[in-house]
Amino acid sequence: MAHPFDPGYVAEPFLTLCAEYPEADVYPSDQFRLEWGPIFHRGRLDGSARVLVIGQDPAQHETIVRRILVGEAGRRVQGLLAKLGVTRSYVFINCYLYSVYGSVKAKTRRNPKLIDYRNRWFDALFRGGQVEAVVALGQAADEAWRFWVASAVPPLDVAYAAVPHPTQPESSSKGDKTKLAAATKKLLQNWNTALQTLAPSLQHPDVFVPLIPYGDQWADGDRVPIPEFDFPAGLPAWMHEQDGWARRAGADDLAKRRNITLTVPKGLVA
Amino acid sequence: MAHPFDPGYVAEPFLTLCAEYPEADVYPSDQFRLEWGPIFHRGRLDGSARVLVIGQDPAQHETIVRRILVGEAGRRVQGLLAKLGVTRSYVFINCYLYSVYGSVKAKTRRNPKLIDYRNRWFDALFRGGQVEAVVALGQAADEAWRFWVASAVPPLDVAYAAVPHPTQPESSSKGDKTKLAAATKKLLQNWNTALQTLAPSLQHPDVFVPLIPYGDQWADGDRVPIPEFDFPAGLPAWMHEQDGWARRAGADDLAKRRNITLTVPKGLVA
Repeated sequence: MAHPFDPGYVAEPFLTLCAEYPEADVYPSDQFRLEWGPIFHRGRLDGSARVLVIGQDPAQHETIVRRILVGEAGRRVQGLLAKLGVTRSYVFINCYLYSVYGSVKAKTRRNPKLIDYRNRWFDALFRGGQVEAVVALGQAADEAWRFWVASAVPPLDVAYAAVPHPTQPESSSKGDKTKLAAATKKLLQNWNTALQTLAPSLQHPDVFVPLIPYGDQWADGDRVPIPEFDFPAGLPAWMHEQDGWARRAGADDLAKRRNITLTVPKGLVA
Repeated sequence: MAHPFDPGYVAEPFLTLCAEYPEADVYPSDQFRLEWGPIFHRGRLDGSARVLVIGQDPAQHETIVRRILVGEAGRRVQGLLAKLGVTRSYVFINCYLYSVYGSVKAKTRRNPKLIDYRNRWFDALFRGGQVEAVVALGQAADEAWRFWVASAVPPLDVAYAAVPHPTQPESSSKGDKTKLAAATKKLLQNWNTALQTLAPSLQHPDVFVPLIPYGDQWADGDRVPIPEFDFPAGLPAWMHEQDGWARRAGADDLAKRRNITLTVPKGLVA
C-alpha cells in the first residue's frame, strides 16, 4: 500500500523561511511555548494552492507531526474546503509559529518583526498568483491577514472570509451542552455565509461540486479526514486518522509545559 | 540565527522508497514496533555522501525526530566519522525500518521482501558512485551489507568495516563498571582497526585531518554532536544536543509499548 507524504520545505523561499525564523526576541517565552520549536504549515507549497487558510497557533499534536491544524479543528476546516471542491489545492499557515501559552500581548502581536516574517510567508504563497480564496480562523488570523493586505502592493483580487475558529463552540461553551448547540449553530451559519463569499471566486477547485450548506449541527461528512499526503514521511496512520493521542501531562503547570505524552490508540498493539 | 535543516525525501528514488515500504506482512508486530511507523535515514541523500553507516533499528528518540541514530550511539559514530574528516558527507540507514520489539527471528531477517526493499536503498545510495567507505554497526548491519554485496553486480570497490555497535559496551556490561571499562576498551581497539581500514579509501573527506586513534576509553571530543542540519525543520535545539528526553513509560509492557513520553530538559522553561 502506498503512503503518499508531504515532502515539506524543498525550495526557496521556504528553505530560507524554515531556517531563519523569529525566536525569543520576537516570541516571548511567557506567551509562547518556544521550547517545542516553530511549526510552519500544512498543505501545498508548490504553487498549486487555490485556498489559503490562516489558523492561529499549533498545539501538542501539531508539535509531534510538525504540521498545523492536524486535529479536530483541521478536520472541520478540511470539511469546509471539501464543500468548495478543494481536496488538495490548499495551504494552511498560522498567525503564530509557536504554541500560545496563556495569552498574547498586544505589543507582541503588533511587533513589526513578527508581522514582517509572517508577511514573507504571505508573499511566498501569493507569488504564483494562483490563490483564489482566503479563510481566516478567528480574530488573530483576521488581523494577520489585514496587516498583510495593508502592506501589499498592488491590492489583491481574492475572495476573503473571516470565520470563527472551528473549535470556538467548544471553547466558548465550557461543557454546557445547550450553549454548545447554540454556538455550533451560529458557527455553521457563519461558515455558510463564508461559503457564499468564497465559492464564486474559486475558479479552479479540485472537483466541481454543488454547494451544499451546513445544517444547524455537524452532519455526517462535515468533518473530513486530513489526507495522509499532508503528513511527513513514515508517520503512522493513527496520527492522521484521529487526535487525542498527544496530551500535556504533569503535576503542575511547569511540568505540563515541559511534557508531551504520546499514547498509541487502543487496539493497535496486540 | 540560522537553523539549517535536512529537507528529507525530495527526489526519486527516495520519494517512492518512503511512500511504498514494507509493513506488517514483512515486519511482524511481535518483533517490531510497527505502530510508530518506519524511520528511514539520517544524512545526505543528494549523492554527496562519501561514507555509508549501517545501523540496526530506531528507538524512541528516533521515532520523534524521524531520523535515525540521533542519540548517544549517533554521537559516537559522529565522532568516528570526524576522525576520518567526514563532517557532512555521510548517510545512515538501518537494517530495520521499525524499532525491534524483543528479538528478530531468523526467518524475518532473511525474508526476501525485507532484504529486497533494503537493497533498493543500497542501490539508491550507491547510484552516484561517490560512496568510498561503509561502516556496519553490529551483526545485523553486517549481515545486511553482505546480503546486498552478494546481489550487487558488478562487485563493489569500497572500503568496508564491521564494528561493534557503539553502545554495545553498555548493553553487554549491564551496569558493571569493570566490565564496561573492558568492553569500551575492546570496542575502541576494534574501531581503531576500522579506522585503519577505512581511512586509505576516503579520497574525498570534508576536511583532511591526521588520523588520531582512540585511547582505552572515551576521550573529550570522541563524542561529536549531531549537526542541526541532519534534523527536520523547526525541531528545537535540545532534541539534537542531547538525548534522555524521550522514554517509554507505563505500568506494564503493553502500556510501555503504546507510550512515548517527551520531557523538555530542565532549565529551558522558566
